[in-house]
Amino acid sequence: MAIYLNDRFLKNDEALLHVSDLSMQRGFAVFDFFRTENGIPLFIADHLDRFYTSAAAMHLHIKQNKPELTNIILELIEKSGMARAGIRVMLTGGYSADSYLPAAPNLLITCNPLNVLTDNDFEKGISVISYEHQREMPHIKSINYQMAVWLQPFLKEKKADDVLYFKNNIITEFPRSNVFIVTNENKLATPGRHILQGITRKNVLSLAKETMQVEECDITTEDLVNAKEIFLTSTTKKILPVLKVNEKIIGDGKPGKTTISLYQKFLELEESLAHLVNL
Amino acid sequence: MAIYLNDRFLKNDEALLHVSDLSMQRGFAVFDFFRTENGIPLFIADHLDRFYTSAAAMHLHIKQNKPELTNIILELIEKSGMARAGIRVMLTGGYSADSYLPAAPNLLITCNPLNVLTDNDFEKGISVISYEHQREMPHIKSINYQMAVWLQPFLKEKKADDVLYFKNNIITEFPRSNVFIVTNENKLATPGRHILQGITRKNVLSLAKETMQVEECDITTEDLVNAKEIFLTSTTKKILPVLKVNEKIIGDGKPGKTTISLYQKFLELEESLAHLVNL
Repeated sequence: MAIYLNDRFLKNDEALLHVSDLSMQRGFAVFDFFRTENGIPLFIADHLDRFYTSAAAMHLHIKQNKPELTNIILELIEKSGMARAGIRVMLTGGYSADSYLPAAPNLLITCNPLNVLTDNDFEKGISVISYEHQREMPHIKSINYQMAVWLQPFLKEKKADDVLYFKNNIITEFPRSNVFIVTNENKLATPGRHILQGITRKNVLSLAKETMQVEECDITTEDLVNAKEIFLTSTTKKILPVLKVNEKIIGDGKPGKTTISLYQKFLELEESLAHLVNL
Repeated sequence: MAIYLNDRFLKNDEALLHVSDLSMQRGFAVFDFFRTENGIPLFIADHLDRFYTSAAAMHLHIKQNKPELTNIILELIEKSGMARAGIRVMLTGGYSADSYLPAAPNLLITCNPLNVLTDNDFEKGISVISYEHQREMPHIKSINYQMAVWLQPFLKEKKADDVLYFKNNIITEFPRSNVFIVTNENKLATPGRHILQGITRKNVLSLAKETMQVEECDITTEDLVNAKEIFLTSTTKKILPVLKVNEKIIGDGKPGKTTISLYQKFLELEESLAHLVNL
């Protein structure tokens, strides 16, 4: 397995940073994450756009331009020999002299095996709970998931698969996924602000617009539990039905028509991009 | 220079963690920081109490008990050969298999040269600006200083030395320091909630109580700018007068009587603990 650190390819066990790096001193780093299928990085242009946007928003400069970074990633994928992988591109605040002010950023790219969800996972769907919290700077993909990791024992206790954040009665997002609802009027709705703009979210919005009314708007916790269908979107989970919220069953407790249709369309989009061959 | 990682002493350049550590994956780590004078760690019991409290609040277990950890720190100080140093004790979420769920924590202790502020810095005081923000889980000393580091270019632009957070018109703390005001009635007041309980703060409260009325209470931004004196407290800055807030001069723009008196008492306390010898 290979990694890339600043300006060279190294072995996976060399993906080390000194503790003086601002990621460890002050949680100061941004990243992005995407998948490969058939060795092809899916939606890489969108992910790199967001990576550069996150870096700029944190006042961090990426030495490589987008074509250069893309080539490095393609070379890394080839070196890895993996057909399906998760690529994580991280840019940190660097080795800070005073443990506070950013220095020359460290760029670290890793390529790891990835379990993706199956049709079976889709059928089973997930059960979630809601929790009042607003992420700091949600539009930036930073490494701050403190609250999400902290909530894990609470999720286990509640036998829930994930947690949906809300603030002042308005839902926003899951720690690593966006949320969508299908209303009783068959409109597709998703929060439009105080969130990270997901790449799968963007694709789903675009696919849905072909056949139905779509809205980016504030959604209350009441709208949520009264929805006909709920699902989440993310790079690893693609589209996943949410069948229970705070123990309340949504719809008839099975993946809904709209969710199934969008899931199939999204899989087709991915297949067309990855030129997947049936073996 | 020496460091301690999990169960052994290593050289400083070996203070490395693999990127799979949750500190770099999810900003999930706690720490504490204290100074040595004459090779003696100041207020170490208080700092370790807080370190164990932070770890427990984040559901992280420290393998060593307090006496064991204290001995490791004392040995590290001795190995470093430094009379004056900053000791940073960090506990991370460990090398996570799925980049999300905590694993066996990594314990990393570093000992570095430290510049402490002088009487001259005290005389000059600092100029600060206020900024609306509430830290997540402020009572836990986690590595999340994203907002503070992000604000650095803004501070530079405003020619300010530090930023004081407030929320809904109530001031809370600086990113790395607590705030105190002396009211026109000669009462000492400091925020009592939504803050990290500083060790210097605790000592200053205790010293002040001997001679004046002291209150832990909500303080508005109006109370702040109308205060007779303002100062901050921190491990590295000890007590530092705040002489300007958002360009408004506080008092007569010089360190006030109460601030000076508490500063002297605090230095005496430190000296008595460190058995400082005049060379």
